[in-house]
Amino acid sequence: MGWAIALHGGAGDIPLNLPQHEKEGRETALQHCLDIGVTALKAAHSPLDVVELVVRELENHPLFNAGRGSVLNTEGNVEMEACIMDGNTKKCGAVSGLKTVVNAVSLARLVMEKTPHIYLGFEGAEAFAKEQGVETQEPSHFITPANIERLKQAKEANRVQLDYTQPIQNDVKIETHNVNGDSQLGTVGCVAVDGDGNLAAATSTGGFVNKMVGRIGDTPIIGAGTYANTFCAVSATGKGEDIIRGTIARDVAALMEYKHLSLKEATAYVLENGAPQGSVGLIAVSAAGEIAMPFNTTGMFRASATQDGYSQIAIH
Amino acid sequence: MGWAIALHGGAGDIPLNLPQHEKEGRETALQHCLDIGVTALKAAHSPLDVVELVVRELENHPLFNAGRGSVLNTEGNVEMEACIMDGNTKKCGAVSGLKTVVNAVSLARLVMEKTPHIYLGFEGAEAFAKEQGVETQEPSHFITPANIERLKQAKEANRVQLDYTQPIQNDVKIETHNVNGDSQLGTVGCVAVDGDGNLAAATSTGGFVNKMVGRIGDTPIIGAGTYANTFCAVSATGKGEDIIRGTIARDVAALMEYKHLSLKEATAYVLENGAPQGSVGLIAVSAAGEIAMPFNTTGMFRASATQDGYSQIAIH
Repeated sequence: MGWAIALHGGAGDIPLNLPQHEKEGRETALQHCLDIGVTALKAAHSPLDVVELVVRELENHPLFNAGRGSVLNTEGNVEMEACIMDGNTKKCGAVSGLKTVVNAVSLARLVMEKTPHIYLGFEGAEAFAKEQGVETQEPSHFITPANIERLKQAKEANRVQLDYTQPIQNDVKIETHNVNGDSQLGTVGCVAVDGDGNLAAATSTGGFVNKMVGRIGDTPIIGAGTYANTFCAVSATGKGEDIIRGTIARDVAALMEYKHLSLKEATAYVLENGAPQGSVGLIAVSAAGEIAMPFNTTGMFRASATQDGYSQIAIH
Repeated sequence: MGWAIALHGGAGDIPLNLPQHEKEGRETALQHCLDIGVTALKAAHSPLDVVELVVRELENHPLFNAGRGSVLNTEGNVEMEACIMDGNTKKCGAVSGLKTVVNAVSLARLVMEKTPHIYLGFEGAEAFAKEQGVETQEPSHFITPANIERLKQAKEANRVQLDYTQPIQNDVKIETHNVNGDSQLGTVGCVAVDGDGNLAAATSTGGFVNKMVGRIGDTPIIGAGTYANTFCAVSATGKGEDIIRGTIARDVAALMEYKHLSLKEATAYVLENGAPQGSVGLIAVSAAGEIAMPFNTTGMFRASATQDGYSQIAIH
């Protein structure tokens, strides 16, 4: 038993020959965010505070698909969403359709703490953000040149495309409105447990490139992209629709609760049986401080550390 | 083995002395909707078609909190949401934040069938409805005098109030922004299975009285208010936030899948362990044609029938 933390910056078909500056940029960012989380856990901050803090950092980093750096919908705008959940109380908060809020995860936490609701979306969520006085920016703040280019490519190819995608090859089969066949995916998330077994999870995303206006993915859905109870905390990433259909995050916990699997067994089972090959990655920690970070994609940007000194940054 | 169908029109603290015209009106409507579903099953329509058809009827009935008759949010508007799911394929569709769409459940099905997404919300969902040419009405079409009165009472009492609520007694403790303590709840839903064990579920709602603008409840959340796989189909109703936290609909199926419980055992377990007393009702059918309709509220408007001739309409 001891604290443990894991975080991700998206899973997908990440090329082995990812350009060096992109690889290093993301590894540096993952290390920075991990350090922040580890410092907070060492300072005895609650896992709920830790996952919020870490996801805020990931949101603020333009290389990841959440907050600034979110991918663009078919109209060229960001629509961001996020979720946070506390394992002991099962208290949770979620937001969707944000266009101006700098840190969606913190607004999700305010929904959890300041309203009788769990989940606010779109104009109502924006109005709540203003009422709470959270930091907002003009929509242009969130848009990066890389994401303008990704949307342009996706529109040219007339297909839905997920982030991190390399320029589409001319010989790639073009499919209209087909999520399958997209090569890369993204989201950010963090799970943490303290030495007393208190668990929390948080996830944040911009969704995927060229998504329809109003599309809601798995990230804000309790039990799909995000879940925590007294057994484990889980944050998933990948093809959102597959994660929703597979109730991926809840199923990891349900397999521990109802089938008495270990964290590693439960996450392996879900990756094998709960979602198509190439669609999902997840990070999970158990109350006992175990970590699992399986993915059935070619890679997942990830980092983890435990109280006994283990620390890892990895992509493939 | 044979077909089976169950439907609900909301669960909550339904008074035993419900006015006779309200009781009869709802019973007549439940019988009418049940008859439509039974006729469709006998005519070998797919369970997916059947649950959509029945929920459309329930949406169209102004006594139920979905479609016309939806309760009003804090600004006096309806924001309707719905979900539909097919058990064999786990294909599903969901919508939230609708202001003009007559049958939210059918728009959810169109999201499932015509987009690469599962879930569209608010303006994007309305735009998709226009693009698909589904029937829309002015927002005023959905608003009933009874719901204007319910909102007025809720605002006077400065508390969040669920539908079907009787006039608030002066000696009732007033709680600001507290979902607990609300006396009644609502949603409509239907689950069905055919003689070959094909399952489907659908749910539709107006949410609850005086909800914040943009509030999303359990109904459109796959695994919370609505779920179907090859084991069972489930539609839940009650306090949406408790249903989300408890991943109620998925847990019924997960208990059958991972703990090998029967439908009756799984639904009883979820009602006992998954949600606070007084918060949830659900309807469920198994692939074998069993029906379970437990609730831990004082009542649930419900109806059910099976191929062997069983038929029931009940409230308490």
